[in-house]
Amino acid sequence: MTQLKSEIIAVGTELLLGQIANTNAKWISQQLAMHGIDVYYHTVVGDNLLRVQDQFNQSAKRSDIIIVTGGLGPTDDDLTREAFQNISNVEMVEHKESMNKIETYFKKQNRGMTPNNKKQARVFAGAHVIENNVGMAPGMVVSFDNKTWIFLPGVPKEMKSMVTNGVLPYLGKMTGDSKVIKSTMLKFIGIGEATLEHELSTIIKHQTNPTIAPLAQEQGVAIRLTAKADTMEKAQDLIERTQNQIFEKVGTYFFGFDEQNLEGKVFGLLKEKNLTIAAAESITGGMFTDKLIANNGASSVCTGGIVCYDSKVKENVLKVASETIMNQGTVSEECALEMAVNVRKLLGSDIGISFTGVAGPDATEGKPPGTVYIAVSINQNRDYVKKFIFHGERQTIRNKAVQKGYELLLKYVK
Amino acid sequence: MTQLKSEIIAVGTELLLGQIANTNAKWISQQLAMHGIDVYYHTVVGDNLLRVQDQFNQSAKRSDIIIVTGGLGPTDDDLTREAFQNISNVEMVEHKESMNKIETYFKKQNRGMTPNNKKQARVFAGAHVIENNVGMAPGMVVSFDNKTWIFLPGVPKEMKSMVTNGVLPYLGKMTGDSKVIKSTMLKFIGIGEATLEHELSTIIKHQTNPTIAPLAQEQGVAIRLTAKADTMEKAQDLIERTQNQIFEKVGTYFFGFDEQNLEGKVFGLLKEKNLTIAAAESITGGMFTDKLIANNGASSVCTGGIVCYDSKVKENVLKVASETIMNQGTVSEECALEMAVNVRKLLGSDIGISFTGVAGPDATEGKPPGTVYIAVSINQNRDYVKKFIFHGERQTIRNKAVQKGYELLLKYVK
Repeated sequence: MTQLKSEIIAVGTELLLGQIANTNAKWISQQLAMHGIDVYYHTVVGDNLLRVQDQFNQSAKRSDIIIVTGGLGPTDDDLTREAFQNISNVEMVEHKESMNKIETYFKKQNRGMTPNNKKQARVFAGAHVIENNVGMAPGMVVSFDNKTWIFLPGVPKEMKSMVTNGVLPYLGKMTGDSKVIKSTMLKFIGIGEATLEHELSTIIKHQTNPTIAPLAQEQGVAIRLTAKADTMEKAQDLIERTQNQIFEKVGTYFFGFDEQNLEGKVFGLLKEKNLTIAAAESITGGMFTDKLIANNGASSVCTGGIVCYDSKVKENVLKVASETIMNQGTVSEECALEMAVNVRKLLGSDIGISFTGVAGPDATEGKPPGTVYIAVSINQNRDYVKKFIFHGERQTIRNKAVQKGYELLLKYVK
Repeated sequence: MTQLKSEIIAVGTELLLGQIANTNAKWISQQLAMHGIDVYYHTVVGDNLLRVQDQFNQSAKRSDIIIVTGGLGPTDDDLTREAFQNISNVEMVEHKESMNKIETYFKKQNRGMTPNNKKQARVFAGAHVIENNVGMAPGMVVSFDNKTWIFLPGVPKEMKSMVTNGVLPYLGKMTGDSKVIKSTMLKFIGIGEATLEHELSTIIKHQTNPTIAPLAQEQGVAIRLTAKADTMEKAQDLIERTQNQIFEKVGTYFFGFDEQNLEGKVFGLLKEKNLTIAAAESITGGMFTDKLIANNGASSVCTGGIVCYDSKVKENVLKVASETIMNQGTVSEECALEMAVNVRKLLGSDIGISFTGVAGPDATEGKPPGTVYIAVSINQNRDYVKKFIFHGERQTIRNKAVQKGYELLLKYVK
């Protein structure tokens, strides 16, 4: 079969005013890519009947599948139905199930229903109706003039549920045996993007399927492998072969696939090895423990921590020696090390980690913003402390400190 | 003068694959709205010469100002220059300053420059060149066939800096005395969206300038007021009049304007009143103190906290009575109250706040996920504890708990 061309139109003035980003188009594109359907355009058009009609006419000329999000609601601003009716002359009929649902809803709420609300139950004659499990307006797939039109609500939760349960199965049947696309992200930490690309240059040059795309990330660097094949298994096989070549070169920096984040990885390793951890956080203010406790089952990994932003808390609660604070200062190797050792002992954990530094905007104890000491304590022989200079604003420095802490731990526990 | 129509075209296959959302279009649209320039379309088109050209041709027919982001980089995939050259026949010339900059960069890096890198210094003859303070490729404003074409890099940091410093001043001169738009967001907490809309229904009904748009937010509810006037001062005046009407109705729930967040507001109030705070965090794991310490000058407000995820830490470090834990459990009014009182005393702060609860997915001590106790301690007469039931996933529950903590504090300190 020939490869189908699709495009996505979002209807909504709020997008053109910059109130929200078109994340619907991003999400739908990902789903379609996975299912081997190419997306050629995203368009946003406002709640204006003539402009929506113009866009529909133009899209019909260039695409086989046109997915429209938004404009199906009950208000006068919701013009998607009218616009399509005007260009197609396809009749609208009441969808009984949807009308029942709307009526039941209003009865339950003890509220009167206005004619506007009924509008949401109107569908195109002959349309394949996609039930809305999350909201009111149903979705529709309409075949018209050899093109497939798919109408979905703009509310992300409703749209996503309908794409997953209705649109993708429908398109799967329609496209039959078309190629599938499988995409995997490999994540690395401790290696720069340039070095990674250099190390992989020969592989990248000789590779077409899967394609290899390096991507800068908030945490480290990622490589996206995208393979096209007749079946998901074959695509997976292509990806694994290239993946292994990549691991041979830079495997030591690899920490996870796809949605895996560094904190989750470290959490998983600690759990696997039955190790508990506690943190003494000054500059990072609780952010380090927060990211551990975000994980299910955190109680078996993180005992807790001391947020010792005030130097008196370092001294009185964490029992850092007053001589250390007096002579070396709170932003020092010595203070960091005592913090890590003491929090481990005080909270009865296997590992202690500490963060002390200058987040800025002002210098502290004569040290410039970005100066951070991180110490890790497991037992006296493996305790260590390291100084870092991070660049950026206050929050960037704090984020980088936390990330570096997880990076250090990854080496310890992997 | 007539109102100018603008549109934004993003060039990049990564957008059509759903790897990133078109946040550039969102941001530029906000900026243009502020400057009274209407945006009629957003389009995303892939790195394909013919399709980019087609889009350019079509946009030229319908818009006065066409802003193009992306496709100005050094690689073969970067086709924006070629596409515009093909439709316009405008000659390209080398931009000396940009070339010097690129050459200096490569010399400093001790790296050889490839011909591709030189491509970034090529601009359209007669273009108004916008310097790139953040990266390599300059931006350009080109007048062609009575339309204004603006070419910008796709990297958000580079694009934003160039829009602010180059594009907006240029367009300001160009549009002359056109109306300006001023937009203000009013933020409320402790009142639902439906109630807020109900309270303001008469104001909303009789109001056209400024327009009033309620928006659901991560924190509470917001109302966006958007006024159009001849000058910024007049627009501001229109906004203030409506704002005062709104405050008369729902002013008690108001906490801030625009980018103000709840944590920042509470932080500011604590600072203003010279009050320090410490937190005892179980379920919230450090997230509460982290949001305080994110602020400049945190040391005068937050002494620190105890992250007491493990019940032994509650007992041994925070000194919660073992009878309390034994008899009432860690997820209880009594435990929360002791945590708040003890952390205040232990860390020597004016206020203590505590969070204990069940984040899930499993129940704890027979209590379902979402059960959270928050206690605030200032002195014995004003101490109090409250039970909440939050709905959602683990992370949603934790976020809601932290937000509720700030909401409670707002009442205390405002």
